[in-house]
Parts: sequence; structure tokens; C-alpha cells
Amino acid sequence: MDITERRAKLREALIDAADEAIGRDGLSALKARALAEAAGCAVGAIYNVFPDLDALIYEVNARTLKRLDATLGAGLPADDPEAAMQALALGYHRFSRADSRHWRAVFAHQIPDGAVPPDWYLGLVGRLFRHIEEPLATLLPHLDGQIRQSLARTLFSAVHGIVSIGLEEKLGSTPDEIIARGLKLMVRAWVAGLPVATAPRPAIRP
Amino acid sequence: MDITERRAKLREALIDAADEAIGRDGLSALKARALAEAAGCAVGAIYNVFPDLDALIYEVNARTLKRLDATLGAGLPADDPEAAMQALALGYHRFSRADSRHWRAVFAHQIPDGAVPPDWYLGLVGRLFRHIEEPLATLLPHLDGQIRQSLARTLFSAVHGIVSIGLEEKLGSTPDEIIARGLKLMVRAWVAGLPVATAPRPAIRP
Repeated sequence: MDITERRAKLREALIDAADEAIGRDGLSALKARALAEAAGCAVGAIYNVFPDLDALIYEVNARTLKRLDATLGAGLPADDPEAAMQALALGYHRFSRADSRHWRAVFAHQIPDGAVPPDWYLGLVGRLFRHIEEPLATLLPHLDGQIRQSLARTLFSAVHGIVSIGLEEKLGSTPDEIIARGLKLMVRAWVAGLPVATAPRPAIRP
Repeated sequence: MDITERRAKLREALIDAADEAIGRDGLSALKARALAEAAGCAVGAIYNVFPDLDALIYEVNARTLKRLDATLGAGLPADDPEAAMQALALGYHRFSRADSRHWRAVFAHQIPDGAVPPDWYLGLVGRLFRHIEEPLATLLPHLDGQIRQSLARTLFSAVHGIVSIGLEEKLGSTPDEIIARGLKLMVRAWVAGLPVATAPRPAIRP
């Protein structure tokens, strides 16, 4: 096994170890020493394959985003935007509950002030929004593509807010079935209201 | 000065010190030793007036919630639900930017598993939602009070999601004017769509 191969193996072993540790104990419990032990290397060797722990955390969070992407994209009805948007919102809610430690790690990961995530990572985030863009294109066929993109991000953020605030014990947590009911109502309101809200404003009549 | 008075003074001094430290460096920089120094007491004396640092953080976050409450409640038009909801959403966005370290601390404060916030704190959170309940009552006069309460919480969470995801550098941050545009569009969609989505379903015609 040459050095490139060995590095690739160590890299994979460290991502596996971090993935498992985050799934078990959450992001805040991630420690270099324990990772090195689990991957069978010296602590210093971590920094031969990753510039810092942030880079390793992006790899784990990328796996989470890919799982989320696969879950959200499965079996969406192509011709019913309300059903598709409802399936997306409820699917996001379920994912956040079923794999909550990984899901929280995506948002809890604090990067240093001024740091920006790698482009490949932002690409994965952007791919998530395309699931919402598709039903939006059916619902709002007149909408400019860039505005649709931005609206997809807004809707995703709103759903994320409903799902994550519902989980916040310190704001008084909300039972899952009430959150699901809120999400369904919100999707119904969007399907009824977005065509009105995004319609070109009629010119003032003479 | 008797002991009750001294305790009350120390309590206030510690809340002041924590409030200032969070506003300056954020929640994660809060340390008992620095707090004690700023308040002019021994580290152990903190625990004579607070059971733990969490209790102190609730006090600081309560001040933040009260400032937010005062900001959101100021000058809302009573008879125009769209204008009121728009003012609330944009007011929340502005507050999150103007006092971002305090605002983040409300959500970043991690409480131990199974712990619940004190009732007086949850009361302050609940009071925030009443600002949204008022325009909702104008917009949706037929709605049952409990459903309106739950809807107000859902709308607050959606706005929070749009505001906070927009701030997340690691998901690709969004310029403030795009977030504001997203919030306005969302409020327009809600005003158009919520009456439809919450209307009693018509009985199937024979």
C-alpha cells in the first residue's frame, strides 16, 4: 500500500470515526484524541490528512446532507405541487427526529468568523433546495428562475424553523404531531397564497 | 445592608456582568471566573445566588426577550394584518442583526437533557407570540383560539427559520435585503393563503 493509498484509508477511517461519534454523542463531544484512537492513528496524524477538525466535520455533515437528499427525493409526485411540498416538509421533520444528532451537527457546527465553507459543501446544500424548486416550478410557472431559487431557499428555511423551534426545549417544546399539523397547514397556505403573492402586480387602471 | 439586600445586589451585578459578556463575546465565552471578577465576588459566591450558570443565562436571555418584545410591539397597525405581520417579521430580522450576540444566545443556550426551563421564562416566550396572534385574529376571525395560538407559534418559527438560516455562513449566507424580500413575500403569501388553508372544509356536495 503506497502513501497515497494509506492517507486515503486513514482519511476514510477518521470520517467513519467522527460520523459514529457525532451520531452517538453529538458534535460537542467530538475530541481529536478519541478520534485518533478509534481510527488507530496518532493525534498528530489527523492533521496530515485534514487541515483542522472543521474540515473533518464538513465531511461528516456532507454524509448527513447526502442521506437527507436521498430521503427527500424519494417518491415525490411530479404533478402535484401540494403533495410534493407536503412530503418534503414532513420528510424533513421525520429526518430531523430519526437522526437528530447528525442533523443538529449540520447547524451546530460553528466555523471561525470570516471562514467560508468549501464550495463542494455549499453545492450539496444547494442541491437540497432543488427538491423544492421542482414543485414550485409546477405551482408558479411564470416565476423567473432566480427568484424561484431564492423562494425555494426561503421555504426551506421556514420549514427548518418550524421543525427546529419545535424541538427547542428551552422555548417550550412542541409535540411532533402538532409540528406535523403546522407543516401541513403551512404548505396548504403556501399553495393557496404563493401564486397570489408572486403574481405580477396589475397596473393601476385609469 | 442586610443579607437579603446584599444577595439581591450581587444577583443583579452578576446578571449585568453576564449580559455584558454575552453582548461582547457571545454565550460560549461566558466563564464563571470572569463573571465573579466583574461582579466583585468570589467564584463560589455565584452559586449562593444562582443554582448554576444556566439559571443566570435564563436571566440574561429574559432581558433579551423583553427587549425583543418591546421592539416588536411598538407601533403595530391594529387594523391591517398584512402590515402588522410584515412589521413583525422585519422587526424580528432587524433585532437579530442589531443585537446578534444576545439574540443568538437565546437559541444557543444548551440545557441538560431532560431539563425544562422555568415557567416564568416560558411565559416570556409565550408573550412574544401574542404579537402575531393579534393580526391573526383580524385575518382569521373564525379561528378557534387554541388553533390561533398554535398557528402564531408556527408563523414565528417560520420567520425565525428564514432569519436564522440566512445568517448561517456554513449554508451560504444570504444578503439582508434578500432575506427581507423573502420575509415580505412570505407574509403576502400567508395573508392570501392562510384564510383558504384554515377555512372549514366544505362538505362534499351530493
